[in-house]
Amino acid sequence: MTFFSPFAQDDDRPREECGIFATYNNDDAFAHTVLGLHALQHRGQEAAGIVCYDGKTFNAHRAVGLVGDNFNDPKVVDLLVGPAAIGHVRYSTAGGSAARNIQPLYADLDLGGFAIAHNGNLTNAHILRQELTSKGSLFQSTADTEVIIHLMARSLRRHRIDRLVEALSQVEGAYSIVALNEKMVIGVRDPLGVRPLVIGKIGESYILASESCALDIMGAEFIRDVEPGEVVILDSDGLHSRFPFPRLKPRSCIFEYLYFARPDSVMEGVSVYESRKRAGEELAKESHVPADVVVPVPDSGVPAALGYANQAQIPFELGIIRNHYVGRTFIEPTQQIRHLGVKLKHNANSARLKGQRVILVDDSIVRGTTSIKIVEMVRAAGATEVHMRIAAPPTASPCYYGIDTPEKNELLAHKMPGSEMAAHIGVDSLAFISVDGLYQAVAGTKRDNDSPQYCDACFTNSYPTRLSDKEEKRSAPQLSLLSETA
Amino acid sequence: MTFFSPFAQDDDRPREECGIFATYNNDDAFAHTVLGLHALQHRGQEAAGIVCYDGKTFNAHRAVGLVGDNFNDPKVVDLLVGPAAIGHVRYSTAGGSAARNIQPLYADLDLGGFAIAHNGNLTNAHILRQELTSKGSLFQSTADTEVIIHLMARSLRRHRIDRLVEALSQVEGAYSIVALNEKMVIGVRDPLGVRPLVIGKIGESYILASESCALDIMGAEFIRDVEPGEVVILDSDGLHSRFPFPRLKPRSCIFEYLYFARPDSVMEGVSVYESRKRAGEELAKESHVPADVVVPVPDSGVPAALGYANQAQIPFELGIIRNHYVGRTFIEPTQQIRHLGVKLKHNANSARLKGQRVILVDDSIVRGTTSIKIVEMVRAAGATEVHMRIAAPPTASPCYYGIDTPEKNELLAHKMPGSEMAAHIGVDSLAFISVDGLYQAVAGTKRDNDSPQYCDACFTNSYPTRLSDKEEKRSAPQLSLLSETA
Amino acid sequence: MTFFSPFAQDDDRPREECGIFATYNNDDAFAHTVLGLHALQHRGQEAAGIVCYDGKTFNAHRAVGLVGDNFNDPKVVDLLVGPAAIGHVRYSTAGGSAARNIQPLYADLDLGGFAIAHNGNLTNAHILRQELTSKGSLFQSTADTEVIIHLMARSLRRHRIDRLVEALSQVEGAYSIVALNEKMVIGVRDPLGVRPLVIGKIGESYILASESCALDIMGAEFIRDVEPGEVVILDSDGLHSRFPFPRLKPRSCIFEYLYFARPDSVMEGVSVYESRKRAGEELAKESHVPADVVVPVPDSGVPAALGYANQAQIPFELGIIRNHYVGRTFIEPTQQIRHLGVKLKHNANSARLKGQRVILVDDSIVRGTTSIKIVEMVRAAGATEVHMRIAAPPTASPCYYGIDTPEKNELLAHKMPGSEMAAHIGVDSLAFISVDGLYQAVAGTKRDNDSPQYCDACFTNSYPTRLSDKEEKRSAPQLSLLSETA
Amino acid sequence: MTFFSPFAQDDDRPREECGIFATYNNDDAFAHTVLGLHALQHRGQEAAGIVCYDGKTFNAHRAVGLVGDNFNDPKVVDLLVGPAAIGHVRYSTAGGSAARNIQPLYADLDLGGFAIAHNGNLTNAHILRQELTSKGSLFQSTADTEVIIHLMARSLRRHRIDRLVEALSQVEGAYSIVALNEKMVIGVRDPLGVRPLVIGKIGESYILASESCALDIMGAEFIRDVEPGEVVILDSDGLHSRFPFPRLKPRSCIFEYLYFARPDSVMEGVSVYESRKRAGEELAKESHVPADVVVPVPDSGVPAALGYANQAQIPFELGIIRNHYVGRTFIEPTQQIRHLGVKLKHNANSARLKGQRVILVDDSIVRGTTSIKIVEMVRAAGATEVHMRIAAPPTASPCYYGIDTPEKNELLAHKMPGSEMAAHIGVDSLAFISVDGLYQAVAGTKRDNDSPQYCDACFTNSYPTRLSDKEEKRSAPQLSLLSETA
Repeated sequence: MTFFSPFAQDDDRPREECGIFATYNNDDAFAHTVLGLHALQHRGQEAAGIVCYDGKTFNAHRAVGLVGDNFNDPKVVDLLVGPAAIGHVRYSTAGGSAARNIQPLYADLDLGGFAIAHNGNLTNAHILRQELTSKGSLFQSTADTEVIIHLMARSLRRHRIDRLVEALSQVEGAYSIVALNEKMVIGVRDPLGVRPLVIGKIGESYILASESCALDIMGAEFIRDVEPGEVVILDSDGLHSRFPFPRLKPRSCIFEYLYFARPDSVMEGVSVYESRKRAGEELAKESHVPADVVVPVPDSGVPAALGYANQAQIPFELGIIRNHYVGRTFIEPTQQIRHLGVKLKHNANSARLKGQRVILVDDSIVRGTTSIKIVEMVRAAGATEVHMRIAAPPTASPCYYGIDTPEKNELLAHKMPGSEMAAHIGVDSLAFISVDGLYQAVAGTKRDNDSPQYCDACFTNSYPTRLSDKEEKRSAPQLSLLSETA
Repeated sequence: MTFFSPFAQDDDRPREECGIFATYNNDDAFAHTVLGLHALQHRGQEAAGIVCYDGKTFNAHRAVGLVGDNFNDPKVVDLLVGPAAIGHVRYSTAGGSAARNIQPLYADLDLGGFAIAHNGNLTNAHILRQELTSKGSLFQSTADTEVIIHLMARSLRRHRIDRLVEALSQVEGAYSIVALNEKMVIGVRDPLGVRPLVIGKIGESYILASESCALDIMGAEFIRDVEPGEVVILDSDGLHSRFPFPRLKPRSCIFEYLYFARPDSVMEGVSVYESRKRAGEELAKESHVPADVVVPVPDSGVPAALGYANQAQIPFELGIIRNHYVGRTFIEPTQQIRHLGVKLKHNANSARLKGQRVILVDDSIVRGTTSIKIVEMVRAAGATEVHMRIAAPPTASPCYYGIDTPEKNELLAHKMPGSEMAAHIGVDSLAFISVDGLYQAVAGTKRDNDSPQYCDACFTNSYPTRLSDKEEKRSAPQLSLLSETA
Repeated sequence: MTFFSPFAQDDDRPREECGIFATYNNDDAFAHTVLGLHALQHRGQEAAGIVCYDGKTFNAHRAVGLVGDNFNDPKVVDLLVGPAAIGHVRYSTAGGSAARNIQPLYADLDLGGFAIAHNGNLTNAHILRQELTSKGSLFQSTADTEVIIHLMARSLRRHRIDRLVEALSQVEGAYSIVALNEKMVIGVRDPLGVRPLVIGKIGESYILASESCALDIMGAEFIRDVEPGEVVILDSDGLHSRFPFPRLKPRSCIFEYLYFARPDSVMEGVSVYESRKRAGEELAKESHVPADVVVPVPDSGVPAALGYANQAQIPFELGIIRNHYVGRTFIEPTQQIRHLGVKLKHNANSARLKGQRVILVDDSIVRGTTSIKIVEMVRAAGATEVHMRIAAPPTASPCYYGIDTPEKNELLAHKMPGSEMAAHIGVDSLAFISVDGLYQAVAGTKRDNDSPQYCDACFTNSYPTRLSDKEEKRSAPQLSLLSETA
Repeated sequence: MTFFSPFAQDDDRPREECGIFATYNNDDAFAHTVLGLHALQHRGQEAAGIVCYDGKTFNAHRAVGLVGDNFNDPKVVDLLVGPAAIGHVRYSTAGGSAARNIQPLYADLDLGGFAIAHNGNLTNAHILRQELTSKGSLFQSTADTEVIIHLMARSLRRHRIDRLVEALSQVEGAYSIVALNEKMVIGVRDPLGVRPLVIGKIGESYILASESCALDIMGAEFIRDVEPGEVVILDSDGLHSRFPFPRLKPRSCIFEYLYFARPDSVMEGVSVYESRKRAGEELAKESHVPADVVVPVPDSGVPAALGYANQAQIPFELGIIRNHYVGRTFIEPTQQIRHLGVKLKHNANSARLKGQRVILVDDSIVRGTTSIKIVEMVRAAGATEVHMRIAAPPTASPCYYGIDTPEKNELLAHKMPGSEMAAHIGVDSLAFISVDGLYQAVAGTKRDNDSPQYCDACFTNSYPTRLSDKEEKRSAPQLSLLSETA
């Protein structure tokens, strides 16, 4: 008898690695940070952390689990006081070392305390780490983020903000960052603006958050997106802005619109919900087939399916029901149950599928394993035809900018040509939205192939930064030599 | 600074009190029971328990929390072996005494061990309890179910099944029951069939479960509903049936269709999803107003909203987004945050609401407090008109048959006439489905007022059984004299 | 690789099963009960429980572990308020069912709430339990004490105190009891007075406790021993006394003096420490051999060794050092380590043993397994001769009155004649104190063989009560059919 | 109502800060380390940690609590495999940051993994820390030991052992160290040999441990003490020795003999038990008064009291009984109970004290608060005279070498002349052993005042090393800026 995790089933879904939140000069700093992280929980469900500064001491709580389960202990509430806070939600790394990787990270620099939380991924972190280690730096985590702190610790600059800029000038990759010292909160978005970061305001207090939905939850006002390459400072004088990095043409992640961001968020002026609906419409324009019913794979496929159904003028029905009460792990005693494991989350609504020609709409295909089970379930429920329509282009390349995708050779779109996929998944037909169709849905225009408007490397293999670690085949951080029980 | 529970917010929703599951002669008895209870988690999320019989000893595990979090400990897996199991999910009672009320209950009768799990509520439990206590019976829980065991313990019959029938002949109210002794699993549905119970089969093993979705999760075959008043026995010879109670005209709970049951379940031959969609259609027929968009209150209002939108030929849109990552408790430091608390679960999708005339479709109104906040949020997002349509008639009377509704004087429909409710909730118009419309949606026919086809007491105040405890004003179980730390 | 418990090692020592404490009309009822149980911790280290009555509700906390680890949680402190409390420390039974056996037990009788804690053991509990079960009583624990509550529940008397007396009139065996209802604390000592119970006073509040050391810890005054067969009532009028049982000649347990009671306690006017020292003196008179040093087996052998050394005029030395920091369990990976396991608790002080003729003084031999290891260790440290002197007569019969001794056929004194024991244990000579010598040490007089002054059944096989369960071979309580995870 | 800790009561006792253990090439490396740390538990009861190397990965478990409670989880046992291990027991620092200070510390140096455990204290750690931080080193703990790792990380040497020597050449103070890398275990004792470290052997495997009792527990052979200034290497070739530091005249800590070390340990050829007994004898020679009974303050005063009683020819009696079952914390509701708090651990054995002239023998007086309570208790039990004799000279100066003593101005011997102390403590007479008497007891010779044989700074204020942090008034480590919930 073995165990499996329902999250492991989600290996067939890409996973965002982080959400961040910060506020300054805010009487409800801790409570707002808890609420904001809760609203960002979809960006990372495995662990959460908050660091507050009470005017004298930095106080931290970091824990494995949901925000709503970990910040209500009176001991925690009493500790995390003060008008400044930053927070982070994340997926955990494998193994027992999770605890020391939970952000925000904190260090005592010679200039004072410094806490930092990071959404994104650095593509030269291993090279930098090795160089720092060879010069005598000792790492306490395996997080790439720690490289930034060590670069700051070795900087000769007199101000932490200058040290941070200097450190970030040496890193490659994607980062939206919030940081906290005794005097301010700092927010930074990398020059390409790969990961989102927005500015809000509640009363007189400014807020930084990964998505606008984290403002809505507490009734805060949306001010604007942090611009790519911008450094924002929240201090006792309010909000200040700098642009210390060479300016580049922005290329924010187009996958955020398709999959990660919450549908009620608005990013760079675009409604996530609307862009998903339009992707469904584009898909219907590009690849419609006669059918009786359009069925979303819940929950993330719903907006695209609505758009598809509207465009194609076919009934939209909840032909698959999702169970949201999923705990940490389930036992799985027999092969028979393993085979049917997907039903832990999804069940066919047979009344709506029997004898029908079904168009299934999903947001992406990664490995394809979940799709196979869903299709099998839909056919078992009596569907006469199953056509699958995907609101993203084929995912053929991994993300190195903070999204947890499988290795390239596990990606279905890398393993076989599109023409073989339909048979592999067991559908009567399969179609993906085109890259141009996707751009049309999100931006209302085609892709500018000379200078693409978004990072779409997972679809096009065109990476907007160097991938130094990958090029030099650096991958295993030395620190993995130590394992610990939780 | 005080704390509140997000579940407490749901005080404005009725709550099912239990789900039950049983299987016999099944090599995967424990694993199937875990999966079945997971599929029934919507019927009770606060605690779960399983009792197995290994041929020699009854083994139990009962815990507060979700099924998926509590049955994966190797210690539990190694203990709960054997080919027979019954299980239960429930909402906890208030206070620290929850642990001893988690079902299945177990007793050593003089005839041997006996475990029992119960969905429903007995309406003369306090009277019986007092009489039993005065004769020397000692109660170990405050669960009404324990009365049944004590009646069995005092019975003179020679067989446990006869004792169970004798005990049930003395109780009033609603019950679907599964029980386990050394030789069999017993399933019983009360003569009115208020709560559901279905029979399934996987391989050669029979299953009893509250809903058919608990069969689907493991690929089990649906056989039939247990009939009202039927006693079903699963033993080494297979399945046997008896009808030991006086036969009554069945009156199963119509609220199960509207709200409690999972939409992918089929009850008494009726698809729950379809009956909800038809309720939306009926609602549109009865009370449509001109509008731009139909928006469901997620998740339970979705099917009715689809039906409404189809019937009314108005676009269906996800104008409210639900956050499913809700933990146990949140801090709530200020009045400002308390006021906006509802956004922990729901956020407006402003892009879809601004400047629109919105029809909000929900499944029921209990206290009305949630509705007020939802409407306020939708208006704040820019809706020009808000009309609310409810897929249930006004809930004006409490349920005494296993659904956790507020006291009568807290029910909005009891506190004010329908004509005042719209203003109270803040909508431009408010309409409920008619009782006949609801019957039409579920059964395809109007209510037979001389002999109603369903229990609809919460809408009509017409209770199908005596309410002896209520009539004699018995309510506080004596056992509440003892409180314990968890 | 397997695990063993250091407590399991103590299988070679008899174990007291319980300590009890109660107070009434006491502003510090909970705190005093915690302190009192801490002072009685030597009587039971596995679990502890307290029930308080706050004037309206009985409140309870019961937990596995030491008193000092389990009653400091603010949640517990805030719950256990009110001026009346009873408490209990105990050894756990095997298996996961420990929790429901932790005393005080509580029941809602028809006359009101009733909590009870018991030190001792009933010798007809299984017979009574079976009879009660056949009449419809349901047991919630496997504790013999629960029989008393069921007998009370079925009694026709109008007052709980009369019901308690009626119930106790039906039981056989040994019991010191404290009980609590809404109006009083009740203390009872069985007519033979097998287990101790004393009365104390602090300020205006009365206390009942197993030993006088539980009074000393809080500076309470010792009033007197509860008399055998006495029922003591603490209520708002102070202390009342009744003698409702037929009077018998008292026979308190002589083993309490030798081993269980704390040396600083005074029982029936006799100092426990002094009686142990005198036992050592008697032993020296009865069986001295020439030697260089007297070494106690710590800690319980120390007073007797001091007496022996004084009497024999030989130096007393700590030749064996005890490690008190023993946790719950240790791993034991190899046979080699298992063999040397005893050193977890004891180590030889080689400097004091090398080249010496050693007299080892211990308080008892049960199985003999610990003695073998101790002797082996002392010889390995260089002792030239090892003589063992035991301050108790050979333990040849099990206790049925609340002391956890092995089955008869595991007792070394039952397995072989005294003449073979020395060789078995590996000593050059072995002697036990005589029964008369022991009486002399404790009471200053010989045993009255016609009417013994003490219960000494473990040495003499002369049991002062019937042993009905044993005679009828009743042993397994039916309730053991259910096992539960903790 | 407030809480207090029974350990806090021990603020009146000095506390050893650490015990260390290491083994290499040992099939039972983990089990032996667990046993060895258990035997060293008296040197630190608050936390314990073990790091093993399995040939590929370093694996660690560190936890708050006793050894016997924290290393039996199968998850831990399965992780901590491999033939090399080092371990540590310690007292925790205040606050929530304990976890990251639990040793062994571990770092990934550029040369590979390195784990280190330290007994002692560095007297220039804060200065070094500040210099390292200003050069860009980031500290993960507040332990002085981490300085050593950072010095190693910055060293230019090619071998870790040379780096360790170089690092230790820069530190001041006291250290016995065990360290582990992929190829060896390293043991070091500082050039003065302040803290103990011994070499043992079991089968073919070498062991390093703080005291010889940690060898006895598993039946290992004592080989010899590590010499002051010696570096010992355990590798696959066996045991190697180096002396890389300038040689100094050894000055091991004399307080280890008096108080810290277990009485069954032998240090530098001297039995700890015997030196304590001889101290009692010296005390009797120096300051005897007529009395009836000699009573030790248990447990640590027992050997000296035996020596005193022997020398003075007065009966030795256990006039004070100690309760060893002390948990973590107790509630303390009233001033009355606080006043009597000391009885949680000690109770008077009145039978032995009433009407007696009592000589109380204790091992040291620090603040004097415990002594006051003990004396009060002995008088309340009826003693007619109370004379206190202390087997150490007056403790007038704090220890900076790894023993947790109060600040100087809290030391009783600093606050008042000896002539006032007797009245302060409430005794009829008070005497301390002389420094020469103590040297006589331990070494059989007087103190060589020109070149003392031991570190006796706590008695003589003569510190054998520089105290740079103290001289420069460095004390608060910068890292204390961050507090964390456990």
